[in-house]
Amino acid sequence: MDIKEEAMQMHRKWAGKLEVHSRVPVKNSHDLSLAYTPGVAQPCLAIQKDPSLSYTLTRRWNTVAVITDGTAILGLGDIGPEAGMPVMEGKCVLFKEFADIDAVPICLKTKDVDELVRTIYLLSGSFGGINLEDISAPRCFTVEKRLKEMCDIPVFHDDQHGTAIIVGAALMNALKVTGRKIQDVHCVINGAGSAGIAIAKHLMRLGLKNLILCDRFGILCEGMEGLNPAHEEMGHLTNQEHKQGSLADALQGADVFIGVSAPGILKPEMIHSMAKDPIVFPMANPVPEIMPEEALKAGAAVVGTGRSDFPNQINNVLAFPGIFRGALDVRANDINDEMQTAASYALAGILAEKELSAQCILPKAFDPRVVPAVAKAVAQAACDSGAARCPEGLSAK
Amino acid sequence: MDIKEEAMQMHRKWAGKLEVHSRVPVKNSHDLSLAYTPGVAQPCLAIQKDPSLSYTLTRRWNTVAVITDGTAILGLGDIGPEAGMPVMEGKCVLFKEFADIDAVPICLKTKDVDELVRTIYLLSGSFGGINLEDISAPRCFTVEKRLKEMCDIPVFHDDQHGTAIIVGAALMNALKVTGRKIQDVHCVINGAGSAGIAIAKHLMRLGLKNLILCDRFGILCEGMEGLNPAHEEMGHLTNQEHKQGSLADALQGADVFIGVSAPGILKPEMIHSMAKDPIVFPMANPVPEIMPEEALKAGAAVVGTGRSDFPNQINNVLAFPGIFRGALDVRANDINDEMQTAASYALAGILAEKELSAQCILPKAFDPRVVPAVAKAVAQAACDSGAARCPEGLSAK
Repeated sequence: MDIKEEAMQMHRKWAGKLEVHSRVPVKNSHDLSLAYTPGVAQPCLAIQKDPSLSYTLTRRWNTVAVITDGTAILGLGDIGPEAGMPVMEGKCVLFKEFADIDAVPICLKTKDVDELVRTIYLLSGSFGGINLEDISAPRCFTVEKRLKEMCDIPVFHDDQHGTAIIVGAALMNALKVTGRKIQDVHCVINGAGSAGIAIAKHLMRLGLKNLILCDRFGILCEGMEGLNPAHEEMGHLTNQEHKQGSLADALQGADVFIGVSAPGILKPEMIHSMAKDPIVFPMANPVPEIMPEEALKAGAAVVGTGRSDFPNQINNVLAFPGIFRGALDVRANDINDEMQTAASYALAGILAEKELSAQCILPKAFDPRVVPAVAKAVAQAACDSGAARCPEGLSAK
Repeated sequence: MDIKEEAMQMHRKWAGKLEVHSRVPVKNSHDLSLAYTPGVAQPCLAIQKDPSLSYTLTRRWNTVAVITDGTAILGLGDIGPEAGMPVMEGKCVLFKEFADIDAVPICLKTKDVDELVRTIYLLSGSFGGINLEDISAPRCFTVEKRLKEMCDIPVFHDDQHGTAIIVGAALMNALKVTGRKIQDVHCVINGAGSAGIAIAKHLMRLGLKNLILCDRFGILCEGMEGLNPAHEEMGHLTNQEHKQGSLADALQGADVFIGVSAPGILKPEMIHSMAKDPIVFPMANPVPEIMPEEALKAGAAVVGTGRSDFPNQINNVLAFPGIFRGALDVRANDINDEMQTAASYALAGILAEKELSAQCILPKAFDPRVVPAVAKAVAQAACDSGAARCPEGLSAK
């Protein structure tokens, strides 16, 4: 059966992918008097005195809200909050299955940035973390930035940073495989939306110096007319040689192509024009910028895509479960740059030297080493960077 | 061990009373491709075309948000949203254990009525129903009224209507036991807050004609100065004889006392002054308006309290699980007066004639007949009143 039909059948059969369970017995009136009135008054009063006890007397310590406004669901665009729910439920399933996190899916009935920010802030007292999901660019930048300033719990836009963290790990291992160093390579990112920009910033944090961003308008260059604020910022940060032209121009002599754009955009001749043994990550979903076999035929040394049916899947599920697990474990108040960088290094470091190859630059989604390694590194970085008070044994300094 | 200490220990041990579970297997990449990308795109697109499919392809059909602003938590008052969470989690536990409903606890960080209404409305697309909880009066009236107008899912303030429904059932059975009819009795409600007003309105729907509301200011009478809008409305609806004076004055010759006020307010001599075989429901928690043994000694024929350690516990858990179960089962867009009235009749009708006595006017919380009977009656009333499209077999007319 075709995957579309099978998925529909399963969703009808499942009738919702999540369920709320009680962790406590309620079999008689004594149980009732402990879990509810009158006994429940005691933890309430304790939290009133010391709000931090909400992390030990309620489920907050293990709870993440997965929140969207339905404006950028998968590659489907603005399909509305109700229609976004199957994805949010799916994300919550992954939080639970991969990292034992209790995630609650929430689809908000507004697209207004101010209202999104305020609503999510008002919800933030009920959760230990907030995962923003599938909010369209450039609105997602403002929503995330303002929430990070307001909230005392981690706020993380997975479409930006989750993707960036995995691309970072994939690139570091691809560079090992092809014998390069990140500070020496020339990299081109095609697609200057939220994911492309987040990837650019993250790779620069990992040491990348030479980077060009492209979009429908061609090479992004400082001083171009009609740029939005996010593009203006990126024009300033990238393309130090002020190159102008098309994607094809940008790729001449480049070592790395990263695509978060559209099907079929990368042509074999463009790969031919790149440096020897280029690294090519055509990540458009479900149809990549170039099919892997074509890229390899054109000379690519390492190819990674978003798809599970090709080698080197660059899949968000490698990052967000471990990142939130680590942040929750040390009650971090943020998922900051340091924690994200640590996640990339941890992910890249999971595969031993002998496991690494052009066909294997990332661990598989179900590799049991992934979540513990990422969580541990993120927790450590949270403590080291001051995003969390260090519990015993996590103090690195 | 004392219940307070035991409850604290259990809350520390439980570390949260709820958990989110996945209903779907995620053991390999095929599972992933059905529950998440790319397969999940299909139910999304189906819901985009027909939003009502959110009730079959996501968990919405079985999901209720339990929402507070932390302003009237139990009898503790305004203790803030974080401190309200143990109660909300407890409520969600009861939803699950009694009616298999997936309830999500949400404590909002605002007390502003406009903001509460807007925020809850923005959340309403993610749930099948909304249970408002422990929001202080008179704000709760506005919040509920406006949300009922805006939302296409049931909105129910349990502190008002849940209590009223159970008092209604308790009163109907107490009247049977003492051989009275509701249209003939004189009733006094002490405590004109949200619960007292909801009880008053509900009892009038059940046929009560002679009703006086009292509060700290004494008997509520139309035309009194300084009344808030809710009290003005109630002054108009009750006390048709324009009595003035104290609670003691109101009770002279009355058949029924209902207290939702404060400990110790009802004196034995007031019961002496009531009609023969009076019905007395001193429901203040945890210490009632008069202790049951004292009330019986003073001549009360039937006594009901909010406490589980005395006979005739008037306990909200008898109503809200079945009410939401019934509303969700037929996808009702409201929990209207007809549904609430039906719930009272159903609850009162569970005990057979031979089970009824002065010590047994209500079923116990764990009586397995309660939720199915209430749910069935509420679903039927939803269909009959137009709050739901009648599925086959539920059309009564």
